[in-house]
Amino acid sequence: MKAEVVSIGTELLLGQIVDSDAAFISQRLAEIGIGVYRRATVGDNLERVTATISEALERADVVITIGGLGPTEDDLTREGIAAAMGEPLIVDEAIAEQLKHLFESRGYPMTQSQYRQAQRLPSSKPIPNPHGTAPGLRVEKDGKILFALPGPPIEFKPMALEHVIPFLAQKTGGAVIRSRVLRIAGLGEAMVEDRVRDLLKSDNPTVAPLAHTGEVHLRITARADQIAEADRLIAEREAELRERLGDFIYGIDEMRLEEAVAQLLWDRKQTLATAESCTGGLLGSRITDVSGSSEFFVGGVVSYSNALKMSLLGVPESTLREFGAVSEPTARAMAEGARTRLHAHWGIGITGIAGPEGGSPEKPVGLVYIGLADPETTVVKEFKFIGDRQAIKWRAAHSALILLRRGILADGCASFSQSS
Amino acid sequence: MKAEVVSIGTELLLGQIVDSDAAFISQRLAEIGIGVYRRATVGDNLERVTATISEALERADVVITIGGLGPTEDDLTREGIAAAMGEPLIVDEAIAEQLKHLFESRGYPMTQSQYRQAQRLPSSKPIPNPHGTAPGLRVEKDGKILFALPGPPIEFKPMALEHVIPFLAQKTGGAVIRSRVLRIAGLGEAMVEDRVRDLLKSDNPTVAPLAHTGEVHLRITARADQIAEADRLIAEREAELRERLGDFIYGIDEMRLEEAVAQLLWDRKQTLATAESCTGGLLGSRITDVSGSSEFFVGGVVSYSNALKMSLLGVPESTLREFGAVSEPTARAMAEGARTRLHAHWGIGITGIAGPEGGSPEKPVGLVYIGLADPETTVVKEFKFIGDRQAIKWRAAHSALILLRRGILADGCASFSQSS
Repeated sequence: MKAEVVSIGTELLLGQIVDSDAAFISQRLAEIGIGVYRRATVGDNLERVTATISEALERADVVITIGGLGPTEDDLTREGIAAAMGEPLIVDEAIAEQLKHLFESRGYPMTQSQYRQAQRLPSSKPIPNPHGTAPGLRVEKDGKILFALPGPPIEFKPMALEHVIPFLAQKTGGAVIRSRVLRIAGLGEAMVEDRVRDLLKSDNPTVAPLAHTGEVHLRITARADQIAEADRLIAEREAELRERLGDFIYGIDEMRLEEAVAQLLWDRKQTLATAESCTGGLLGSRITDVSGSSEFFVGGVVSYSNALKMSLLGVPESTLREFGAVSEPTARAMAEGARTRLHAHWGIGITGIAGPEGGSPEKPVGLVYIGLADPETTVVKEFKFIGDRQAIKWRAAHSALILLRRGILADGCASFSQSS
Repeated sequence: MKAEVVSIGTELLLGQIVDSDAAFISQRLAEIGIGVYRRATVGDNLERVTATISEALERADVVITIGGLGPTEDDLTREGIAAAMGEPLIVDEAIAEQLKHLFESRGYPMTQSQYRQAQRLPSSKPIPNPHGTAPGLRVEKDGKILFALPGPPIEFKPMALEHVIPFLAQKTGGAVIRSRVLRIAGLGEAMVEDRVRDLLKSDNPTVAPLAHTGEVHLRITARADQIAEADRLIAEREAELRERLGDFIYGIDEMRLEEAVAQLLWDRKQTLATAESCTGGLLGSRITDVSGSSEFFVGGVVSYSNALKMSLLGVPESTLREFGAVSEPTARAMAEGARTRLHAHWGIGITGIAGPEGGSPEKPVGLVYIGLADPETTVVKEFKFIGDRQAIKWRAAHSALILLRRGILADGCASFSQSS
């Protein structure tokens, strides 16, 4: 079964809104074995909307339209579908009644233009929209299936999951596609590929690497007649990959590195304090993006000035004078100062040059020192990051999380520093 | 002149990469008076790539393809264009030679597959790619113009700006579209619209409101025969809008709020210190995203625990006991503590409940107090934000920047607190 997706809206065409619905539905369709062969985006113009839908219906078994179902005169998807499928539009009295009740309950009068949302093709079935006013449509005709859903993601996504995917899954009855992402940090893309190269060539399940800033993701995708069989294929391949990559794999699917680190700290009932210079608070912000982080994160100091490095963290003036603010000894003193002054098990210190100004031949933009202190030992790593200011900040915070994760897994900096 | 954009790549089709190039080129084309009528996304399949390009060429005067120009067998754009335009592919010896030099200079041998990037249609002109290996192509044939550019944005965008837009601007010679965005903070969308409603109806220039988290943007777009005339229309409308909206307009086009605040602090040679609780360092991180922020940002404390609020910021234990960590008096003490303990002109204190846990009927999720202290006065504002944890953090940091900006513009908290 082949599908095409048609997104409708001038703002989408001009890129003023990102079309997250199209990606969402493409991925969900792939999971039930339906490939999306093309996606089209077209503006609010009846002729072009009609032509685009017609062409998609000629080529594909399933067409999903996104957007253009609202009450205003710009919203032309209903008209376009009617023209493409050779039917008139009728007013569905039941929908009109529902809309009227909805507006009454909100204390607004229902304007004439709102009635447009009650229009549908005679051969169509309305799809309820619990999060908005515009219902969707399903039309089955001449062996083709068309779904029309509203564009706001908060309306589109639940309607797709409740009414489109189950309906089509039943129709296909057959092959399912399942996938799982293994998230890897602390090992570059080339090194990951070296370890798993032979597995990247396999056909079912497939293993596809995707490089992200500071991370590599491996997407395992399996195809089978039944979900259970696809899941078994994924589990087997995952086991092999875990054997090769060990605990460089920090999580699966949507898990973020800061969540993986939070879980390790919760499990061990250990606390953390941070001292950030070039990252300016980004590490603390990422850690506190995790709900419940107050249980392990006592807080931090953003010691952008040397005066604060001394007064709040106890970095000796002589260290700053002799080695400079961006140096191994300063990162060490910051990590230890955060740990002892803020009373935590772990202390992290980050100091570096985020650029684009402030670099020198000896200390170029992108040079960052990250210290990690536990009650016995402190380790400091030197990094040379590339990218713009925000990328360097992000990589530095990410590397601090990787370093902390390795320290926790090694049960402390001492054994970890010997092994590295 | 009508244009269509064809994006090529299975990863785009599945939404694993966001197609920022397509939006970018659509906007730039609009600015020179060329409307993009459709966008299509197609996977790495020669038949579908060829058909999509052929169809676009039938309808449009200009077709721009994005991606699929790399060295691997998945990269089929060259083949698709050749098939769609009825030409063979030849190897361009000059390009092959350049590629060979490029690989030699990097110390890599050039593999056979890299030679694919030296292929082009006999009637095409290569477009140099200073940031990557794959050159682009320009083909003019039968009254149509086709551009093929590589997909990575760092390669695509400069090539589009240097070779596509100027070439097409010269061809059209005529109507230009220019636009400017006014960025507004501290006034909600409805209030902005109330002040400028009559101007939203004008035709040339048009004024379109776009709501973003915590901000409203007004995009002025003017059409004229000459750039100077379009710019004059924009300047006139901008003056009217500024009269209505005053200094709620903090900047134009790409300027971010933190950059506007930084500029005000630089101009006044004033310094800033922060005390963040629920934002966890996000405010500091946003401030330090501005290059040169070390000149005014001395640093901050992320006082996630009550102990740190007391030890590092001097918040009295009695305040925390009597009013709680999330309260007007605590925000006040945090702002003042940041200012005096960290030695800055301005101090900001943020305390609140980012959720999703930790709310209560009296202090619900989203309740945030933000304090702003100058040498004479401290003001505290109460906010009730909606959204998930990250949205609440973002809105709180944003509101702190708005509060600080108002304080600076009012020459201190005293006059500002009387006037609000």
